[in-house]
Amino acid sequence: MALLKKPVTGMKDILPREMEIRNYVMDLVRETYGHFGFTQIETPCVEHIENLCSNQGGENEKLIFKIMKRGEKLDIANAKDSSDLSDSGLRYDLTLPLSRYYANHSSELPSPFKALQMGSVFRADRPQKGRFRQFMQCDIDILGDGTSLAEIELVSATTTLLSKLGFKDFTVRISDRRFLKGIASCCGFDESSWDTVFIILDKMDKIGSDGVKDELLKSGFDAAAVDKCMELFRESNGDSAAVLSMKEALGEHLAEGTAESIISIIDSVNASKAGQFNIKFDPTLVRGMSYYTGTIFEIEIAEFGSSIAGGGRYDGMIGRFTGNDVPACGFSIGFERIITMMLDADFKVPSKSDKIAFLVDKKMTSEGLVDVMKQAAELRSEGKTVLVTQMMKNKKFQKDNLEKDGYSDIRDFYNK
Amino acid sequence: MALLKKPVTGMKDILPREMEIRNYVMDLVRETYGHFGFTQIETPCVEHIENLCSNQGGENEKLIFKIMKRGEKLDIANAKDSSDLSDSGLRYDLTLPLSRYYANHSSELPSPFKALQMGSVFRADRPQKGRFRQFMQCDIDILGDGTSLAEIELVSATTTLLSKLGFKDFTVRISDRRFLKGIASCCGFDESSWDTVFIILDKMDKIGSDGVKDELLKSGFDAAAVDKCMELFRESNGDSAAVLSMKEALGEHLAEGTAESIISIIDSVNASKAGQFNIKFDPTLVRGMSYYTGTIFEIEIAEFGSSIAGGGRYDGMIGRFTGNDVPACGFSIGFERIITMMLDADFKVPSKSDKIAFLVDKKMTSEGLVDVMKQAAELRSEGKTVLVTQMMKNKKFQKDNLEKDGYSDIRDFYNK
Repeated sequence: MALLKKPVTGMKDILPREMEIRNYVMDLVRETYGHFGFTQIETPCVEHIENLCSNQGGENEKLIFKIMKRGEKLDIANAKDSSDLSDSGLRYDLTLPLSRYYANHSSELPSPFKALQMGSVFRADRPQKGRFRQFMQCDIDILGDGTSLAEIELVSATTTLLSKLGFKDFTVRISDRRFLKGIASCCGFDESSWDTVFIILDKMDKIGSDGVKDELLKSGFDAAAVDKCMELFRESNGDSAAVLSMKEALGEHLAEGTAESIISIIDSVNASKAGQFNIKFDPTLVRGMSYYTGTIFEIEIAEFGSSIAGGGRYDGMIGRFTGNDVPACGFSIGFERIITMMLDADFKVPSKSDKIAFLVDKKMTSEGLVDVMKQAAELRSEGKTVLVTQMMKNKKFQKDNLEKDGYSDIRDFYNK
Repeated sequence: MALLKKPVTGMKDILPREMEIRNYVMDLVRETYGHFGFTQIETPCVEHIENLCSNQGGENEKLIFKIMKRGEKLDIANAKDSSDLSDSGLRYDLTLPLSRYYANHSSELPSPFKALQMGSVFRADRPQKGRFRQFMQCDIDILGDGTSLAEIELVSATTTLLSKLGFKDFTVRISDRRFLKGIASCCGFDESSWDTVFIILDKMDKIGSDGVKDELLKSGFDAAAVDKCMELFRESNGDSAAVLSMKEALGEHLAEGTAESIISIIDSVNASKAGQFNIKFDPTLVRGMSYYTGTIFEIEIAEFGSSIAGGGRYDGMIGRFTGNDVPACGFSIGFERIITMMLDADFKVPSKSDKIAFLVDKKMTSEGLVDVMKQAAELRSEGKTVLVTQMMKNKKFQKDNLEKDGYSDIRDFYNK
């Protein structure tokens, strides 16, 4: 029986041109974040099922690829459901594995610890254009720093990277989960219903403020509370004055220091920014993950109309492994989206060395080959790229393609 | 309930120091193989179970991590065994996925195609020191070239890489599966028993020639045939004369061109070599994988007494996807073993930029932070690494550790 040529559903093979762009971006990520003192680490692709299903990842948990138990542990006859058959699964993000990693290794790591991760994550999503079941995530996180310095560094590093990648005029939207809580409290929503309220508020981008209002009312929330909420929860002009006016409106419902922290982040980022972008306070920012506890941020590029990076503070997650909370804050760029944009824009990766191709006739003698290899070795020792390859029957076709790949010097080798 | 801090059994978290060495080696791999005209590609970590269980991977197939089917496809009540519950699994090597990839994309790739792959593979092996269930493989392959040029390029590129990594005085052992077949045929072993004979011969390293002889006899093979086999199957001095003398001994039992191909490879590699190493013909080389069809090679470093790279020709594998055989040959370095050796030797990765650390007092005001961030931004724009981080209570401890990490310039920042 013939084997299957296509990749498994929803996953993709990466062709040379895309791989070149991916490597270029990954190098730039490592270099840029390296200059900010982030050090790279890695965790396994496979995680304990208990950790993956720990009810912190929201919708993502439904999308876990589960790995079957092996040998005697696999007891199909007595299995009630899939949870009896699996004790591990593929990671669906890098935040949970990082928290486990830090809990396991904190004594061997600096404090605070600035981590860079680039790795594949896996989600059994419905396949659709541009969304894959295995994709790269690229995260920076600062663990062990509860001050705004963490947010400032994360935003500065990410915006510097995006600027180096050629992005301009993007907007960093910043808020704090504690504003949302303040709004919910101020409007009189019952605390048990806050998560529901936030999920509806998060739909602003998709259904607009009228849609959000309708959905809140349909969900049975009090009309006066909904009106007040809609008034508070509106996009502001995003400057420090707007933060202070929100603070005043919320009064005692807002946790102390929330407004000052946002203002400090905005001021420091603006004062030291490397690139053309805006940073603004936006109280309509919600972000899906239930694990966020403080600052949240997202970067949007107007011309693409979509978010290209996002993150926030999640001070409670590491404590789920150790019993002791550790402040933590992270920022993730949309690596795959960036690659897609660069492919669409036909981005050319600058070549690092001269590229020479040696086309060798199939009938070349052993002595002839020795001579070819000597010449190639000499050029390679000078740092040049030398592709030594068999000559195709259709040499013109082969040469045209090599030229497209940047081989400007193409030499033929026949028996003398 | 507290979550699990340790990685899953047999897999490992990669700490910053190891990651730095891994990145250094990966960069050198990309650069060196790039100079030989190899282009990097990637395939998904997940493969069709039909492909993984296609009986070409020998022992590896038993070690597959199987992924559970999802939704309605998962029918536990009617499942007879694990094969009813899984339609995909984690790849256990990069050769099978590459063959699938080439079968799927050959029209978009140059011919011959020189591929570089670096990626994680997964094997549910019994965990033991230095052997992990997720580990990196690093392979180069040339697809579509049936001439010895493929072998010459693969050996040249791999030996150049090992030399750049600082390895000296290693030995490339080279043979051809067709010598083994010639020996088996010449001795009169029945063709149906050849695989059994080869599996026993492959134990030479472990049980010596007396052990091999005993096992062949115990397996019921004819004593005269075994004697003749042991005489032919002995390590030679490895030069061209040895190849020719083996050719003469095997006569018509050896496929035409086998000896000449080995001699041509040895001559060309020797003539163009960049580094201190030997290449020699060794008819005792077997290599486990059943998919090899021609040349096989292995690199040994005497002082470590173990193989550090291996590969060979597998002209039949791509045809299992397409129905049309495509010549293929590959060489894989033992990435994890190399990393372990470098860690043991306390290898220091050369730093690319000045490293400066800013230690910021926790009580720093917003205005103070603005000033710190401005100074950091200026130094970073000059290409320097600036770690801006919160000052620890035990500043001396923090500074000592930063110095160990290469931060020679450490500055304190307090409110003025």
